[in-house]
Amino acid sequence: MSATISPLAPKKYPKMPEIEGVRMATAEAGIKYKNRTDVLAMVFDEGTEVAGVFTRSKCPSAPVDWCRQNLAGGKARLLIVNSGNANAFTGSKGRESTGLTGKAGAAAAGCSENEIFLASTGVIGEPLDTSRFSHLLAGMVKQAKLEFWREAASAIMTTDTYPKVATVTVKLGDADVTINGIAKGAGMIAPDMATMLSFVATDAPIAAPVLQALLSGGVGKTFNAITVDSDTSTSDTLLLFATGAAARRGAPRIDDAKDPRLSAFKRGLGKVLKSLALQVVRDGEGARKQVEVTVTGARSARSAKRIALSIANSPLVKTAVAGEDANWGRVVMAVGKAGEPADRDRLSVWFGDNRLAFEGERDPDYSEEATSAYMKRDDIRIRADIGIGRGKATVWTCDLTKEYVTINGDYRS
Amino acid sequence: MSATISPLAPKKYPKMPEIEGVRMATAEAGIKYKNRTDVLAMVFDEGTEVAGVFTRSKCPSAPVDWCRQNLAGGKARLLIVNSGNANAFTGSKGRESTGLTGKAGAAAAGCSENEIFLASTGVIGEPLDTSRFSHLLAGMVKQAKLEFWREAASAIMTTDTYPKVATVTVKLGDADVTINGIAKGAGMIAPDMATMLSFVATDAPIAAPVLQALLSGGVGKTFNAITVDSDTSTSDTLLLFATGAAARRGAPRIDDAKDPRLSAFKRGLGKVLKSLALQVVRDGEGARKQVEVTVTGARSARSAKRIALSIANSPLVKTAVAGEDANWGRVVMAVGKAGEPADRDRLSVWFGDNRLAFEGERDPDYSEEATSAYMKRDDIRIRADIGIGRGKATVWTCDLTKEYVTINGDYRS
Repeated sequence: MSATISPLAPKKYPKMPEIEGVRMATAEAGIKYKNRTDVLAMVFDEGTEVAGVFTRSKCPSAPVDWCRQNLAGGKARLLIVNSGNANAFTGSKGRESTGLTGKAGAAAAGCSENEIFLASTGVIGEPLDTSRFSHLLAGMVKQAKLEFWREAASAIMTTDTYPKVATVTVKLGDADVTINGIAKGAGMIAPDMATMLSFVATDAPIAAPVLQALLSGGVGKTFNAITVDSDTSTSDTLLLFATGAAARRGAPRIDDAKDPRLSAFKRGLGKVLKSLALQVVRDGEGARKQVEVTVTGARSARSAKRIALSIANSPLVKTAVAGEDANWGRVVMAVGKAGEPADRDRLSVWFGDNRLAFEGERDPDYSEEATSAYMKRDDIRIRADIGIGRGKATVWTCDLTKEYVTINGDYRS
Repeated sequence: MSATISPLAPKKYPKMPEIEGVRMATAEAGIKYKNRTDVLAMVFDEGTEVAGVFTRSKCPSAPVDWCRQNLAGGKARLLIVNSGNANAFTGSKGRESTGLTGKAGAAAAGCSENEIFLASTGVIGEPLDTSRFSHLLAGMVKQAKLEFWREAASAIMTTDTYPKVATVTVKLGDADVTINGIAKGAGMIAPDMATMLSFVATDAPIAAPVLQALLSGGVGKTFNAITVDSDTSTSDTLLLFATGAAARRGAPRIDDAKDPRLSAFKRGLGKVLKSLALQVVRDGEGARKQVEVTVTGARSARSAKRIALSIANSPLVKTAVAGEDANWGRVVMAVGKAGEPADRDRLSVWFGDNRLAFEGERDPDYSEEATSAYMKRDDIRIRADIGIGRGKATVWTCDLTKEYVTINGDYRS
């Protein structure tokens, strides 16, 4: 947690409505941080179904292993999250920790260990001492409250400078259903997934396999389209819980991912995921500007996304944005290094609405003055048109500033 | 060119011997920089053969296109290099510039345009005004000197803080032959190739196809094993010239890449390439530390190199080194994100001789004190053993400091 709040932090937070069947509590366990909450318990009513998406790291954390295994059952009663220690690369001790936490959680919530979900974020490689918080769980489950979303988001922060929340209410059949989400993440953020924890819950009665289809489909243009530093965490976890409580208010139960009644829910979920993903980027370590990179005219959508990520991950592009320098030549460089089909002589580049390069050379009508003024904004849009096809993709990142170096030069101590 | 010389600059420079058949001249053309040389002419005696390796960027510069075309002939009489403008992404104007420079060079050296080689380094996207220096070429060819290697290296610098030279003398048959090289490059440095110009010359009588085989084989463990910022330039050019003058002193002419008499030359060339490549890393923009990353125990050498580059390119690893923080958890992260076969529970990590992690967890015997002392060094060695095979690779990089951000925040102006 940083003393200085990102200048890109939301100006105001939405009022988070309650989700029937979801209660939360936080605690100060002093795992790494002092004088702040660092444990979150999210308690779900019986019958809650769950889906998840995780890091593609070959070195996943112990809690990621735990969740993957429990996801098969599709049922959730309790989510336990700690910040300050990732319980990653902790070998047999890591498995011991998740086992102990799972057992303590099951006792606290009166459920099976298969219904417990775990996430940890913080330093990699330090054994996680579960005795710091396992004895608190029973009390937390008892005291857990419906109206506690903002506090929940605060408890899972690490280098984040603000808590991240999002909410939408949509129609499912004739009933209103709500989707609330929280997220954390500021560094070690790259697609598949970002270093990122995010927990989304809804009162909609949706079966676990359908939730999974919605979530897997929803991350492509949201959490898997953001990058802060191209580094992929060992711990990325995105879980979606559905309590089904809205069934009592007439919401239909959905058992088929193709059910046409899902369309509003699907859009709503996409909105929540995108809002949270962008909040993560806007809290990128040291970030002073949000950068939206759109690639059009690529051979395919997949190729467009690879080129967009090559631009978004380029330190030279990101430092130029930090310096408010419209160095479009570096965008050309990043297109060239992506290894995707491209034709130098058809390439065009825009910063905002300023076309700087057109079909392989500097645009003769380009105004340095207008572009310099544009670069002073908080939100920078870069577009590259490859000129050889119809593939299109958008990704989001932030600039690379000296503060990123400072924050990451001595994180462990 | 920076005011502050990298703390990793060589303590002393080798005396560069003459290479018979290679003469050099420099000029101040004021292309971008003032009060320094920014044009180099390297003049070769008739009969000089040439080989080259270039950027794999899909958006190569006009001079790269030019050189690729002329390389087919295998003969070189004149190399013209300018700094301050890359003549990259300059469309038809770029081709016009190389055409005009080629023509002026051919007139100056009294040779065919096919024997002219061109390289440009600096800002991307600005048309290069060749009238700044084309009229100087005839005079430069006339005044060119044998003993001018250090000056040649200085004329091609951009953000470099010191000129880069290397030399070896080896036996070819019973004759001594010399290999001299110069290089520039400090940012936009990543394999295939680095943003990097390097020109190597020898008096050995070696045919162009053999030179090409030696050069292509030599870059894998040298220039293609370094990275400063993962960004690949549009302009990377490495040329190897052989004047053949040593034939007059009894050196045998080599027409076959498998000729056993080549072995000392091959080793010598490797030494020059490696020395120049490491000098580039040690002058990485803002660099305060050199980092050698070795990966052992990978599935294959190719896989080892990918993992090593994932570590070497990780902003989080590089900022930790800058902060003198032995954050080995980030090495684990970088292994995990490489997408190569790995087994978390067999992974071990060293910083220098300090083993921090062993078979999937923190090494119980690891000393934070010893490791902290180690991290204060200028040269940091990171090793990761994947534990699943025999594949091995070493790459080199530098740390990521605030100075990198400063240097690159406003490069164009």
